Amino acid sequence: MQYMPNVINVIEAKRDGRDLSFSQIRDVVDGYTSGEIPDYQMSAFLMAVCLRGMSDDETIFLTRAMLETGETLDLSQIPGLKLDKHSTGGVGDKVSLALVPIVAAAGIPIAKMSGRGLGNTGGTLDKLESISGFRVELTAEQIIQQIKSVGGCLCGQTEKIVPADKKMYALRDVTGTVESISLIAASIMSKKLAGGADIILLDIKVGRGAFMKNIDDARKLAFVMRTIAAAFGKTVICELTNMDIPLGRAVGNLIEVWEVAKLLRGPQQYSYGFPIDERLYHLIVDLSNAALSLAGSSHTAVTLLEDGSAWQKFGEIVEAQGGDVNSIERWGYISPIAVVGSPNDGYVTDIDAEAIGRLALTLGAGRTTKDGPIDHLAGLWINAPIGSVVQKGTPLVTLYGRPSPTGRELNKEAKAFFTIGDEKPLPPSSIIEIIPDEIRC
Amino acid sequence: MQYMPNVINVIEAKRDGRDLSFSQIRDVVDGYTSGEIPDYQMSAFLMAVCLRGMSDDETIFLTRAMLETGETLDLSQIPGLKLDKHSTGGVGDKVSLALVPIVAAAGIPIAKMSGRGLGNTGGTLDKLESISGFRVELTAEQIIQQIKSVGGCLCGQTEKIVPADKKMYALRDVTGTVESISLIAASIMSKKLAGGADIILLDIKVGRGAFMKNIDDARKLAFVMRTIAAAFGKTVICELTNMDIPLGRAVGNLIEVWEVAKLLRGPQQYSYGFPIDERLYHLIVDLSNAALSLAGSSHTAVTLLEDGSAWQKFGEIVEAQGGDVNSIERWGYISPIAVVGSPNDGYVTDIDAEAIGRLALTLGAGRTTKDGPIDHLAGLWINAPIGSVVQKGTPLVTLYGRPSPTGRELNKEAKAFFTIGDEKPLPPSSIIEIIPDEIRC
Repeated sequence: MQYMPNVINVIEAKRDGRDLSFSQIRDVVDGYTSGEIPDYQMSAFLMAVCLRGMSDDETIFLTRAMLETGETLDLSQIPGLKLDKHSTGGVGDKVSLALVPIVAAAGIPIAKMSGRGLGNTGGTLDKLESISGFRVELTAEQIIQQIKSVGGCLCGQTEKIVPADKKMYALRDVTGTVESISLIAASIMSKKLAGGADIILLDIKVGRGAFMKNIDDARKLAFVMRTIAAAFGKTVICELTNMDIPLGRAVGNLIEVWEVAKLLRGPQQYSYGFPIDERLYHLIVDLSNAALSLAGSSHTAVTLLEDGSAWQKFGEIVEAQGGDVNSIERWGYISPIAVVGSPNDGYVTDIDAEAIGRLALTLGAGRTTKDGPIDHLAGLWINAPIGSVVQKGTPLVTLYGRPSPTGRELNKEAKAFFTIGDEKPLPPSSIIEIIPDEIRC
Repeated sequence: MQYMPNVINVIEAKRDGRDLSFSQIRDVVDGYTSGEIPDYQMSAFLMAVCLRGMSDDETIFLTRAMLETGETLDLSQIPGLKLDKHSTGGVGDKVSLALVPIVAAAGIPIAKMSGRGLGNTGGTLDKLESISGFRVELTAEQIIQQIKSVGGCLCGQTEKIVPADKKMYALRDVTGTVESISLIAASIMSKKLAGGADIILLDIKVGRGAFMKNIDDARKLAFVMRTIAAAFGKTVICELTNMDIPLGRAVGNLIEVWEVAKLLRGPQQYSYGFPIDERLYHLIVDLSNAALSLAGSSHTAVTLLEDGSAWQKFGEIVEAQGGDVNSIERWGYISPIAVVGSPNDGYVTDIDAEAIGRLALTLGAGRTTKDGPIDHLAGLWINAPIGSVVQKGTPLVTLYGRPSPTGRELNKEAKAFFTIGDEKPLPPSSIIEIIPDEIRC
């Protein structure tokens, strides 16, 4: 094995709880990205960071070092304040698909770069690719061009955005070093800073179905990300939102796009009896209003939904990226493989978001390995959300995917993910806490 | 990268401070030794162990798992209690070279497997190889044969002794994961247990020139090693000994063997004015007496030194391993490259063991990389040990090695390693603390 005394000194300094300088952190990040520092030294370093933590300054240094391994989108040729949004990921989290067209419909430029799903939580890119023809891979020039022409885009990160993060994330995933507030904050913020926006909306999911299981950790993450943003002169707003139960009725890919499309088409749709999930609706409206207000817009999300302009903008974005908006309606023709009935009478008092996420994964809607296949038509629809009155046999959830013995077994298993009780539960919260930008407040 | 959920679970459990079971630890050690677990996962695991620590039970599990990756010497065909000795390594530490023949001269079988030097501290194998013809690599059969014929041996570990340790140590060395009491204890004890002895003498060096810088850490290491020994039914005695200043007058390879040879040749040698270092003499006598007493021998080290039987046994061991004992006298014909004079008048009040260790390394007596070359004739002789009265220009230390500009520069540098003061210092201690076997006491 190669003997690299400088890297070893940095690893030992972090192991012993000492603060690292910018140049020490940059040497490690650059050396690892270029391949000079081997995986085994980086994973020891990352574990030391997980256990010793990083100060705010160190986390800012790490973010800067990661950011500087790649390119930053130059949105300066687009006039006005530019917006971006990030969610830490949850089960049924389809907010970006609605928020981007709402904000763009108000004339606020928004370049949203998303990731793919891994594990129990879905990825926006996978959902978008369930729309026939939709291209998620855009170059920096294409992104800028589309913001100029349509006002917004929903795409993947360009190749040159934070290469350090791609390599570090893959290593963290297999070495038990994912769960560090500093590493998570630097990973998210380096990508958001590379996205070039002025205002960043952060949706931090909290609960069973989210990465952050408790509110204290979520709050710490929010504060660290806000500190990083301030160091780079960006405005952020963090919303801590509930991920104990799935968000909305749909979990999967095309099925989630379909749910969003119904919601965007506005009140005329309600009249046909389509059940809009209230928590989902409120979260989309609230986050969109926060974005509009930060950007100084006088529009409100509800108006943009009700007058049809958000839905129109959604169509424009899909079309600009080669997608066929009509293909979303394919969903109506898919046959379920199972309808899970309630085991007894009562109220639905709880739905376990993590279990529902795993269920969608098993149905084929997600990936178990980084480059694994995905079934865009697999997923599930929650027939009986929290508060529903059910009788024995009333459908709780409908499963979609390739028929298989597994699918049939899941029927039995899935019953356990719903809690049926005797008392009507309180409506679950959607927003837990809002942490405003530290400069503005 | 390969996705190994089980290993990741174990890494995460240790990261989160949970206790691991034997099977979890064995899976990691076996998987790493066989190559199924990659370096980057092992280094993350080792860093988690460094920072979270291991319970006594876990450390015993780790020792057992490591031990079981290789073979254990079967000394059962040799009658009586078999002895082994280990030192954690220090500057000028040549105790094993004297203790093995003393103990063997008393009829106690002793199979001492040693390591090579790396960094500031020398290795017994390198010292032995400075004797012309001396073979340090013996097979298990040869070791047993030699104990039967001569009563003792001084050799390297056989190929099949704890392969896990070789691989883990190489990784720890380059990932900042050396400094963990549990990892150090398991590394030492797995090798000592594989050596097959009943009684193990542990010399734990404490101070500037040693791995353990303070007595608290040394004591912790001693207690953990004693606990491991008890779990395997072995008797141990731990002596915490002073490594703030070098041990004896000689630091190097052949020069250390030469110092030991003089000491073993006993009092008749004294009369020729050879300066026996009192701390070295007392430590050898004390550790040897501890070994003899544990093994139930009625001999004492001083008698075995004074009647010449230890020196005779040394000759027998050297001869049995192909060495020419007369070649040790080559030392007398080597010319020094520099004699470092005292910068002023006074008493030698301190000598920095770590700096002296580095000096010997620079002269060529040690290795800077794992497979680097070694100069058996390089080294140094301390002319003015602690307590010496010196005048400006009185020789403090004599340097040996290939003449080079570096050698001349070292002359100036080396002065700083000696402290010259106005008051006569107290004689430095050699043994700091003795931690007896927990079963016997």
